[in-house]
Amino acid sequence: MFYFVIDILGVIAFAISGVLVAMDKKLDLFGVFIIAFVTGVGGGTLRDLLIGNTPVLWMQQPFYIYTVIVTVIFAIVFRDKLKYLRTSLFLFDTIGIGLYTMVGIEKGLNIGLLPIMCISLGTITACFGGVIRDILCNEIPVIFSRKEIYATACIAGGVSYFLIRKLPLDNAYAYVAAILIIIGIRILAVKFKIALPNIYGSESNK
Amino acid sequence: MFYFVIDILGVIAFAISGVLVAMDKKLDLFGVFIIAFVTGVGGGTLRDLLIGNTPVLWMQQPFYIYTVIVTVIFAIVFRDKLKYLRTSLFLFDTIGIGLYTMVGIEKGLNIGLLPIMCISLGTITACFGGVIRDILCNEIPVIFSRKEIYATACIAGGVSYFLIRKLPLDNAYAYVAAILIIIGIRILAVKFKIALPNIYGSESNK
Amino acid sequence: MFYFVIDILGVIAFAISGVLVAMDKKLDLFGVFIIAFVTGVGGGTLRDLLIGNTPVLWMQQPFYIYTVIVTVIFAIVFRDKLKYLRTSLFLFDTIGIGLYTMVGIEKGLNIGLLPIMCISLGTITACFGGVIRDILCNEIPVIFSRKEIYATACIAGGVSYFLIRKLPLDNAYAYVAAILIIIGIRILAVKFKIALPNIYGSESNK
Repeated sequence: MFYFVIDILGVIAFAISGVLVAMDKKLDLFGVFIIAFVTGVGGGTLRDLLIGNTPVLWMQQPFYIYTVIVTVIFAIVFRDKLKYLRTSLFLFDTIGIGLYTMVGIEKGLNIGLLPIMCISLGTITACFGGVIRDILCNEIPVIFSRKEIYATACIAGGVSYFLIRKLPLDNAYAYVAAILIIIGIRILAVKFKIALPNIYGSESNK
Repeated sequence: MFYFVIDILGVIAFAISGVLVAMDKKLDLFGVFIIAFVTGVGGGTLRDLLIGNTPVLWMQQPFYIYTVIVTVIFAIVFRDKLKYLRTSLFLFDTIGIGLYTMVGIEKGLNIGLLPIMCISLGTITACFGGVIRDILCNEIPVIFSRKEIYATACIAGGVSYFLIRKLPLDNAYAYVAAILIIIGIRILAVKFKIALPNIYGSESNK
Repeated sequence: MFYFVIDILGVIAFAISGVLVAMDKKLDLFGVFIIAFVTGVGGGTLRDLLIGNTPVLWMQQPFYIYTVIVTVIFAIVFRDKLKYLRTSLFLFDTIGIGLYTMVGIEKGLNIGLLPIMCISLGTITACFGGVIRDILCNEIPVIFSRKEIYATACIAGGVSYFLIRKLPLDNAYAYVAAILIIIGIRILAVKFKIALPNIYGSESNK
């Protein structure tokens, strides 16, 4: 139940981010819906395709599509008020990537993948909805270019999970700890403006 | 046989639309062929991937690839005459989306998906070849931004199908009726310039 | 063993080409890694998805991801020296497409596909990593627009393979011959500036 609520909140946060990008691009109603849907479930869909888990998740669980439909209607009707939700959306999104990373990792473990592959799957689940959103909107994916700690938080959380799992603790502790680590890193990085190292030398500091 | 002819006409119409977009972008011969192919079979390919129906359809039925090869040669040779075909192309395309929507819906029913998922699959089959075409050509997909009744006609036809199926009629009637509804909505929408509701308020009417 | 070395060299060459494009776009460290990875394994991943060979290859063989990680670090550290490697990179890339084409063709044969589908799979394996790279970097794929003999060399090599196989020779000869034909066509086309036929008439020669 707790899991379910978080999952819905994650889809809502991702879908709203999709609506915002789509409306910036002046897409029509159908386009806004598709972008919202893809942002919400695209990462999990890509994960399911890569591991052959088909029909993909959203085809088997209708609450995803209903959640996106309601979210899009809500977001369009209250589009002028969405800016007041910015902090809540950041929180949902951050909780969402924490949870989605672990969902992806678990799916990888279930089919016997190596830890590094599980972490890749988790990061794809959390981050690639946004990548597909940006490609469909004809932009370079924002997580590839902002030097933000976003996917990096997912990777760090995934690594932590496999380290904590080695301790003599119940697996559930490692699971929850990893989610909290992802959320914590993401929040601290935004608060203290911690970024990825600059790989372009001083000339790009202009 | 009838089905087969319509399927070929649909692939031809989609492939020619791919050639036209690719030539606008001044792609080379290989690029034009890939765009034509992707426009013709991309929707069905995405559908097959999402439901795990692999190898995807065009790998199992060679007539798709041959149809596209012949269409591309024809379209390049007669490129100056293609504009005279505009009405025929619109008709083929419209018949194509009607048929493809129902093909996708049927595939969804065969694997026991819910009606809303079947309608999604049908719409993906009919419309996402064009989406992939536009992404490969570095454009925002045209069906996301024109406020046109295109995907909407597929969705409406799919909903009609599941409603008509409840009547005490042979299933074939519902199938054909849904195709005609899609074609009818599309033609009427173009004829009477019916569009999706504007979600941007008056400032976007400039 | 020989096969393995070539495969690694191919991944390295493709990954470096990804790093170069990603750094041109000023992507951050994460973006550079993803583009390098996608360029290196994207073609094989798309092939595996289309034929339903999941989890896709790189999830089952960790050396791909490790090779890309090492290559990206190397390429970033020595970014100013990469231009001196241009000839080696061209050779690795050319050997890579030769080998990848045949890997794709073999996978198609293993599941009983027709020759034309095997050749398509081979060409996808060799060329579509670069296509996905360009899409993620918001460019029209370079192999669609340069009139270069690149994918065409893969197709020609694939056709040769199926012709040579008909001779009363061990299959290994046909395999190696096809790889050499692809490499040979590619090198000759670059050396003598042989291009695809112009399909736009004289007005595009401006």
